[in-house]
Amino acid sequence: MSHPHPELGPPPPLPKGGLRVTPLGGLGEIGRNMTVFEYGGRLLIVDCGVLFPEEEQPGIDLILPDFSSIRNRLDDIDGIVLTHGHEDHIGGVPFLLREKPDIPLIGSKLTLALIEAKLQEHRIRPYTLEVREGERERIGPFDCEFISVNHSIPDALAVAIRTPAGLAVHTGDFKMDQLPLDGRLTDLRAFARLGEEGIDLLLSDSTNAEVPGFVPPERDISQVLHQVFGRARRRIIVASFASHVHRIQQILDAAHEHGRRVAFVGRSMVRNMGIARDLGYLKVPAGLVVDVKTLDDLPESEVVLVCTGSQGEPMAALSRMANRDHQIRIVQGDTVILASSLIPGNENAVYRVINGLTRWGANVVHKGNAKVHVSGHSSAGELLYFYNICQPRNLMPVHGEWRHLRANAELGAQTGVPHERCVIAEDGVVVDLHKGKANIVGKVQAGYVYVDGLSVGDVTEAALKDRRILGDEGFISIFVVVDSTTGKITGGPHIQARGSGIDDANFGALTPRLDEALAKAAQDGVAEVHQLQQLVRRTAGKWVSDTYRRRPMILPVVVEV
Amino acid sequence: MSHPHPELGPPPPLPKGGLRVTPLGGLGEIGRNMTVFEYGGRLLIVDCGVLFPEEEQPGIDLILPDFSSIRNRLDDIDGIVLTHGHEDHIGGVPFLLREKPDIPLIGSKLTLALIEAKLQEHRIRPYTLEVREGERERIGPFDCEFISVNHSIPDALAVAIRTPAGLAVHTGDFKMDQLPLDGRLTDLRAFARLGEEGIDLLLSDSTNAEVPGFVPPERDISQVLHQVFGRARRRIIVASFASHVHRIQQILDAAHEHGRRVAFVGRSMVRNMGIARDLGYLKVPAGLVVDVKTLDDLPESEVVLVCTGSQGEPMAALSRMANRDHQIRIVQGDTVILASSLIPGNENAVYRVINGLTRWGANVVHKGNAKVHVSGHSSAGELLYFYNICQPRNLMPVHGEWRHLRANAELGAQTGVPHERCVIAEDGVVVDLHKGKANIVGKVQAGYVYVDGLSVGDVTEAALKDRRILGDEGFISIFVVVDSTTGKITGGPHIQARGSGIDDANFGALTPRLDEALAKAAQDGVAEVHQLQQLVRRTAGKWVSDTYRRRPMILPVVVEV
Repeated sequence: MSHPHPELGPPPPLPKGGLRVTPLGGLGEIGRNMTVFEYGGRLLIVDCGVLFPEEEQPGIDLILPDFSSIRNRLDDIDGIVLTHGHEDHIGGVPFLLREKPDIPLIGSKLTLALIEAKLQEHRIRPYTLEVREGERERIGPFDCEFISVNHSIPDALAVAIRTPAGLAVHTGDFKMDQLPLDGRLTDLRAFARLGEEGIDLLLSDSTNAEVPGFVPPERDISQVLHQVFGRARRRIIVASFASHVHRIQQILDAAHEHGRRVAFVGRSMVRNMGIARDLGYLKVPAGLVVDVKTLDDLPESEVVLVCTGSQGEPMAALSRMANRDHQIRIVQGDTVILASSLIPGNENAVYRVINGLTRWGANVVHKGNAKVHVSGHSSAGELLYFYNICQPRNLMPVHGEWRHLRANAELGAQTGVPHERCVIAEDGVVVDLHKGKANIVGKVQAGYVYVDGLSVGDVTEAALKDRRILGDEGFISIFVVVDSTTGKITGGPHIQARGSGIDDANFGALTPRLDEALAKAAQDGVAEVHQLQQLVRRTAGKWVSDTYRRRPMILPVVVEV
Repeated sequence: MSHPHPELGPPPPLPKGGLRVTPLGGLGEIGRNMTVFEYGGRLLIVDCGVLFPEEEQPGIDLILPDFSSIRNRLDDIDGIVLTHGHEDHIGGVPFLLREKPDIPLIGSKLTLALIEAKLQEHRIRPYTLEVREGERERIGPFDCEFISVNHSIPDALAVAIRTPAGLAVHTGDFKMDQLPLDGRLTDLRAFARLGEEGIDLLLSDSTNAEVPGFVPPERDISQVLHQVFGRARRRIIVASFASHVHRIQQILDAAHEHGRRVAFVGRSMVRNMGIARDLGYLKVPAGLVVDVKTLDDLPESEVVLVCTGSQGEPMAALSRMANRDHQIRIVQGDTVILASSLIPGNENAVYRVINGLTRWGANVVHKGNAKVHVSGHSSAGELLYFYNICQPRNLMPVHGEWRHLRANAELGAQTGVPHERCVIAEDGVVVDLHKGKANIVGKVQAGYVYVDGLSVGDVTEAALKDRRILGDEGFISIFVVVDSTTGKITGGPHIQARGSGIDDANFGALTPRLDEALAKAAQDGVAEVHQLQQLVRRTAGKWVSDTYRRRPMILPVVVEV
């Protein structure tokens, strides 16, 4: 199996007739999926998503793919194919279109509707090309065929990309629900046909490659919902993802059957369900959905609220209900359903919400105690089917952390893809398909680009390191004013501290030490600002460490007046 | 079911003949378990553990129970019963003994050995009373009987406490492995006898009350270990908890059978396994365990390392191996086994380690892809057995977050404990057992006490809030020097920022705004330091918010010279 090596250099020029594949995101992480295909000097991008930060990236709003390797080649881009409408596949588009607004977006009806709504907030009107499964479109030198795949959002597509270099297939995110709610299957007949033709390079979703077996059908959840709805005597509050149209459909169906009305809560939920309903993806019986304001007029036993916040997001309605900081006051006998996954890293936040709701007396149903969620990604069992049908010549796992990519490569190898043709790349690693073989040839820049407030890319790793130190240890500022002519200290040391955990009164013990050190420096004729700052930092740092065994950031400021 | 109410006041005096139970930790969280029993003016404490901080408590080392409700009554304490040797049951003892070193500690041989080793680091030699299962000891007015229970550490005990108020039983942590490695069962015959006698109040472990079914036997893991050992061609590195003697025993057995030697790595692992071996809890064939330094002399195929770091702790050996920051350099073909649970909140850290190890080519076996861990706490199925055997008159779930406590109370109710006799308390909530009935009667202080470096209890919630702001947003310091006689600005504004994500060069745009605001203030005769500071804060805050949509901490310092 071909692993990347840290010593990879910049890639050589792409050989004539070769196809270059450069993942700029999604390989080594779950999120910010983006792959650049290059043929004959032209570029085709598949997906452009965002990654949500972990606790190692404090204060960050979003993480984007690094566009620097294509920034000088924006005119070479013939289009961006969007496989489906999830944030980790479309969320980066506004940031790329800011750099060049007329790059065409290619995607299905729902996908385009979702990205257009998002771009509207950024005041961008994109050029779009709507495609459907089974269609074939030439985008520059890339002959693209779109194939229906099943996922946790409707209208997802895989894309087959034909160039003279061969046939590359990118699955996007997919699973293989054999009884999908909308009847729209992952089109294995199409993949079989492509396999017959000969897939030279298959890029395939790795998210669940470590999970044995098969994902149960989405419709299995309806039985659980009916049970929970049948037992509920007061309000029912359901939290889910704002894009999971089929999940919400099942909640609407259960509500309808049990004589309840539904109100949507939360901006993204209201917006997306409006779009899904307008385009016919969500079927809403007349009168079922009502405005949240009218709920007070209904008995509690006839109410369902559908909201966001299933990941414990502190500002979402559900967290605020758990904290009694919302107009909906949870009482004994209310039922709350978290009909969603639990994204790793969110456990503490989600359990905090569950505990808060439980404390007020709610009966909380979640994937830990009931089958109210199924994944949107193929498990190992499904991937084996898929590889046996596709029989790719080269396999490049995408969409996953290292453990997922490796597990996925091993599944490919088990179905007969030669080990040396299972290429495990990571973000920025350049893979060339040339003469039927995929090989790692180099690496381009693919670091994290942080969005923080209005700034994009200004927050550096050094700033994050500072934040981590500040967040763990706080800081101590020490100000000294020095007369620039005499070199004498005329003000201070003034000490201010935040988050250090040291009581302000205790800094009284530090002042004489600083006085002494500064007096000695004056005696020795040390008057240079930088030297005095170093002296203050060392003196204070030693005192804190000796007295408290702590290491706050120390910010010495010596000002000459 | 009796829920606490936020409006609970201080408890009334304990009625004569009543038993008062006050949990100071472990109810509403997993950790810092501590329960105070009071009868006839005397106190008995069961366990005194620590809680490990979450990301909401940045920089904190440990969280202790709040001793303030017993601080004035230290002389009334007749003893501390330690049910077993885990940190969340014994870790707080050094801090309580600092306040009064001669409180006797009562526990089993291994438990006392572990706490004594810990107290030695704090230079405390405790008074101890070693007890065994089946023994009965009078501790002040508390007639205590100790019962064998099975858990993820050997030698765990439950305690039955008899007073004239009735029979209270505290399970400690327990599960009911029916084929334990050491043959030491949870003594259901003893619990049946106590049940016959009549258990007035049962305090019972809630950790796994939400989990259906039964915990598989610990010995089931050995088959998986043998498989993994059989396939491994190079080094095997096993990470586990440093107190899980039976898990380590199984690893030693597998190593022995497969002709490998074992080295322990990590201070707590070496210390605890030394204690367990000396006391006969760990059986080590001669020559099996070697010093880590001698491993270089052995072929890779004959080596097993047993280390800590299974929770992704950044300073532990395993994390450093994943980052290539350790003398052991992971190579293609090494096997790493995480034979441990994944404690909620540690997911990101653990997956980072797994991804790092995988990236270097290790085959990583963990509970996500193999049965290399079983829990130490009874699941719902076991708890039902337990309650049917005990048939308590009152049930008080302990050791768990709200969701666990409530699930546990519901199991009790299902087995016939009357709903109103299932008392869900939380930390600080006072429960009186009087005339056979347990009732919530009030609440005492039971906040988090933070250990941070050498300081205990000095870090306040306000300091943590500062840390969270600093960690998310960074800070901007602005210094202005004012002539105290003329009121004129003679130095500054000097701007320093850390972690704000704003490039230093960009603060050039803020300076003229500050100059302008300060000039206007001078014109208006505003010279008071506090007013000038407010002005600086407002001006800078508005600029940052307008320009960057961010809210760093702003620290204005106006110094008069």
